[in-house]
Amino acid sequence: MAKDKKLVEAITSMETDFAQWYTDVVRKAELIEYSSVRGCVILRPNGYAIWENIQKELDRRFKETGVENVYMPMFIPESLLQKEKDHVEGFAPEVAWVTHGGLEPLQERLCVRPTSETLFCDLYSNIVQSYRDLPKLYNQWCSVVRWEKTTRPFLRSMEFLWQEGHTCHATAEEAEERTVQMLDVYADFCEQILAIPMIKGRKTDKEKFAGAHSTYTIEALMHDGKALQSGTSHNFGDGFAQAFGIQYTDKQNKLQYAHQTSWGMSTRIIGAVIMVHGDESGLVLPPRIAPVQVMIIPIAQHKEGVLDKAFELKDRLSGFRVKVDDSDKSPGWKFSEQEMRGIPVRIEIGPKDIEANQAVIVRRDTREKTVVSLDELETKLAEILDTMQSEMLERARTHRDTHTCEAKTYEEFKTAIKEKPGFVKAMWCGDRECEEKIKEDTTATSRCMPFEQEQIADTCICCGKPAKTMVYWGKAY
Amino acid sequence: MAKDKKLVEAITSMETDFAQWYTDVVRKAELIEYSSVRGCVILRPNGYAIWENIQKELDRRFKETGVENVYMPMFIPESLLQKEKDHVEGFAPEVAWVTHGGLEPLQERLCVRPTSETLFCDLYSNIVQSYRDLPKLYNQWCSVVRWEKTTRPFLRSMEFLWQEGHTCHATAEEAEERTVQMLDVYADFCEQILAIPMIKGRKTDKEKFAGAHSTYTIEALMHDGKALQSGTSHNFGDGFAQAFGIQYTDKQNKLQYAHQTSWGMSTRIIGAVIMVHGDESGLVLPPRIAPVQVMIIPIAQHKEGVLDKAFELKDRLSGFRVKVDDSDKSPGWKFSEQEMRGIPVRIEIGPKDIEANQAVIVRRDTREKTVVSLDELETKLAEILDTMQSEMLERARTHRDTHTCEAKTYEEFKTAIKEKPGFVKAMWCGDRECEEKIKEDTTATSRCMPFEQEQIADTCICCGKPAKTMVYWGKAY
Repeated sequence: MAKDKKLVEAITSMETDFAQWYTDVVRKAELIEYSSVRGCVILRPNGYAIWENIQKELDRRFKETGVENVYMPMFIPESLLQKEKDHVEGFAPEVAWVTHGGLEPLQERLCVRPTSETLFCDLYSNIVQSYRDLPKLYNQWCSVVRWEKTTRPFLRSMEFLWQEGHTCHATAEEAEERTVQMLDVYADFCEQILAIPMIKGRKTDKEKFAGAHSTYTIEALMHDGKALQSGTSHNFGDGFAQAFGIQYTDKQNKLQYAHQTSWGMSTRIIGAVIMVHGDESGLVLPPRIAPVQVMIIPIAQHKEGVLDKAFELKDRLSGFRVKVDDSDKSPGWKFSEQEMRGIPVRIEIGPKDIEANQAVIVRRDTREKTVVSLDELETKLAEILDTMQSEMLERARTHRDTHTCEAKTYEEFKTAIKEKPGFVKAMWCGDRECEEKIKEDTTATSRCMPFEQEQIADTCICCGKPAKTMVYWGKAY
Repeated sequence: MAKDKKLVEAITSMETDFAQWYTDVVRKAELIEYSSVRGCVILRPNGYAIWENIQKELDRRFKETGVENVYMPMFIPESLLQKEKDHVEGFAPEVAWVTHGGLEPLQERLCVRPTSETLFCDLYSNIVQSYRDLPKLYNQWCSVVRWEKTTRPFLRSMEFLWQEGHTCHATAEEAEERTVQMLDVYADFCEQILAIPMIKGRKTDKEKFAGAHSTYTIEALMHDGKALQSGTSHNFGDGFAQAFGIQYTDKQNKLQYAHQTSWGMSTRIIGAVIMVHGDESGLVLPPRIAPVQVMIIPIAQHKEGVLDKAFELKDRLSGFRVKVDDSDKSPGWKFSEQEMRGIPVRIEIGPKDIEANQAVIVRRDTREKTVVSLDELETKLAEILDTMQSEMLERARTHRDTHTCEAKTYEEFKTAIKEKPGFVKAMWCGDRECEEKIKEDTTATSRCMPFEQEQIADTCICCGKPAKTMVYWGKAY
C-alpha cells in the first residue's frame, strides 16, 4: 500500500535542517504539490482552504473600510507598463511576455501582470473627473507572475495568489491615512487570526516598492530567526497620477492630480503560519484560520454505537468546523495525520468514554488532554480553542522578543547577526551606503524603520555619523 | 458637470437595436469598462459584485456535493497541452503563448490556460494510486484566456473568469453520474437564483468539448430570441486517463484507468441575466443575486428627520442588502440610477410618509408601488422580493415557451428560424452532414438533444431519413 508509506517516513527535524523540515511539512500536510511548470506549484485542498479563510477574513475587513472588489485584465501592454519610469525598471526584468496569440505574432507584446498599478491608473484616468468621483477604493483577488530564478513553496513562486488594493484620493493626507490604515488592517488580521505578532514600520528607500514615495511593511520573525516581510502598503503620492494623467476638478473648479496607494498580501503569509507555529510533528494551525478545527477520532470504531456517537457529536458541534475520521486506519495513525495537518484539536471518543458520558479533547500545540463531560462539550471546546489561539500568539511574541536584541557598536552588530538568529535593533544615519555595507558585511537587510522608535544610541551603527532612525535588521526570506 | 451627462444620454431601445441596448446597459450600469488590452474588459464594482454572489452560491452548492477547491498554475507547457490529441486540436489555435521570461527566451513555450484539463490530469497521474484515493472532486476559481477574434462584454472575452471542476472516478458509471449531477446543480442554480429557466440536454458530437466523450449543456433563451449556452458538463470516459496514465489499483489489485469529468460556468452567465431580464430602463437583477437588493431614497432629504429615518430603516433591514442614496442628486435622478443599475426595489421615504408611519416600496420589474406601514416593513419587503423573484422566473419561462416552436418539414423549419426568433424543435437523423447543412442554410446550430425528448415526427427534418432524436435548434450567442 503505497499510501501508507507517507507517514512512516518521518519529517526532517526542524532543529537539524529547518529548510528541509519546511519542505517536508508543506508536502506531507498536503498543502502543495509540485507542477510540470518550473517554479509554479499546485495549491491542494488543505492549502487552498487556508487561503480561502484568509480571503474571507481580509475581504470582510477591507469592505468594512469601504473597499470594493473589481477584476482587471491579466495582461499589460508593454507601452502601458513603461509609463512610470521607476516602476518599469523595477518589474520589467522579471515578467513573463506573451508574444503570440493563436497562430499570429502580436503587434505589441503583453506582459503577464506582476502587479497592476499601471492598469488601475489607466482605469482611474478614464473614470475620475471630479472630486465627486473620489475616493476610489478598489481591490482585486488574483494571481500575479514574477519570473524568479529560485523558488520555494508559498515564499517565492513564479505565480502566486494575492490581493492588491489600489486607491485614489483627492489629497495627500487622505492617501497617507489610507496607506497606514491598510497596514493596520494587515497587522491586526495577522495578530488576531493568524496569531503572528508584527513589527510595523517604514521601508528604507532602498527597499521600497518600485515607483512608491513610501512603503510601509509588517515584518514577522520565523522560528529559525529569519524575518519575513508579510504585507506591504505603498503611498505613491501623485507620481503615478502625473505619469498617467489622473486629474480631477476640485470644489474650486481647479484641476488637481490625484494621490494614490496600493497594498497587498499574498499566499506567502501561509509560509509564515507554517514557520511561526509548526513543530516536529508538522503543521500547527491557529484555530481561527484552520479549515478543520476539530477532528473527531473514534476509538474502537468497530464497536457498536461508537461511530454513531462520533457523528452525533459532529452534528452537535455545528458552530465549529468539524470532521470525523471514520477511515479504516488505526487511531494512532489518525492521530499522526491530524497532527501533521495541524488540526487544532482532536476529540477522542470510545466505548468507555461513551459509558462515562465524556470525551477527551487533545490540543495540537501543547498535547494537553482534557477529559470533558459531554454535557458541556460545546463550552469546553470553545474555551480550549480560544485559549489555544491566544497562547499561540503569546508564544510567538515571546519567541520574537527573546530573538530580538540591540546593538550599539558595529562589532556587537556583526556578532549578533552571526550568532543570534533574530532581529537586531540598531541606529542608522539614513545613508544608502551604510545600508549596502551592512548587507555586504553580514547579509542582513534593513527590515523596517519601526513606527515605535527607540533611541538606542546617537550614532549610526556603521559609519558613526549622527543617527536618524532606529532600524530592525535581520536575515530574511 | 461631466458626470451628469451619463443618464441624460438615454440608452438605445432594445426593440430598435438589441446589441446596442446590451452594450449601453453594460456601460451605463457600470458593470464593465473597456481596457487598453484588446478584447479584455474590466469588471467594475457593480459587475464584480454580481460575480461574487454567483461564486458564493455555486461554491456552497459544489461543496455540498463533496467538491474541494484547489489552485493550479496558469501556464501549461506546450508538451503537456499536446498529450491529448483532440484536446490540443481544439484549443491550440486560440491560446496565448508566453515565449520569454524576464530577458531570456524560454526553452519551451508556455500557453496561458484556456482550460486546465491537462494540468489536472498531470496532478491526478501523480496523486492517484489506489481505489482508496478516489474519487477526487476538485474545482478551481480562476481566469482563462482564449484568443478570440471578436469579443463582447461577458459573452466572449479574451480573458474571462470562471470555475472549472475536474473530477476523477473509479468507474464509468460514477463519472457519468457526476457529469449529470453537476449539470443539475447549474440548472437549479440558474432557475432558483438567477430566475432563468434552462433546457438540459446533450451536445451533438459536432458541438461537444474537445476531447470529451459527451458534453451536457444548459441552454437559455435571451429576450431577442437567441440562445445562450450557459454551462457545460463533460464526461471524458477514460480518454484523458489513457493519454496521461492515470491508473489505480482496484480492490482486486488490478490496474485500472480512471474516469473523468469536467464542468464549468463563467461570467458569461451575467450576460444571460442582462439579456433575459433587462428592459428599456436598464438592468433588472433578480433579488437573490442582486448585490444591493434595496435602495432607500429619501424624499426632501434636506427636511429635518428624513435622512435620520432613512438610515434608521437601513439599520432595521439588516437581513437584506440595503443602501441609502443620500447623495445631493434629485430623487428623480436617483430613481433613474437605481433603475439603470437593476436594484430590485427602492423604498421612498419622505416627510409625509414619516408622519403617516409608512413608506413606499417600488418594484424594479413591474414598477408596482406598495404603500406599507413601517410596522410591517420587514415582512412586506420580504414578500415583495420573493414575489418578484418568482414572477421573474415565470416571465422568463413564458417568454421562452412562447418563443419555442416545432417544425415538421424543412420549409417550416427554415421559415421558423428566419421569422420567429427563438428555439425550433425538430427531429434529426444523427448525421453530421445534416447538422452542417442546416447551419449553412439557416445559420441556426443544434443547441442540444434535450433530456426530455418528444416524438415530433419520424424523419429527419433535413434529409428525411429515419429520425434518431429531437433537437433544439436556434441562433446562438
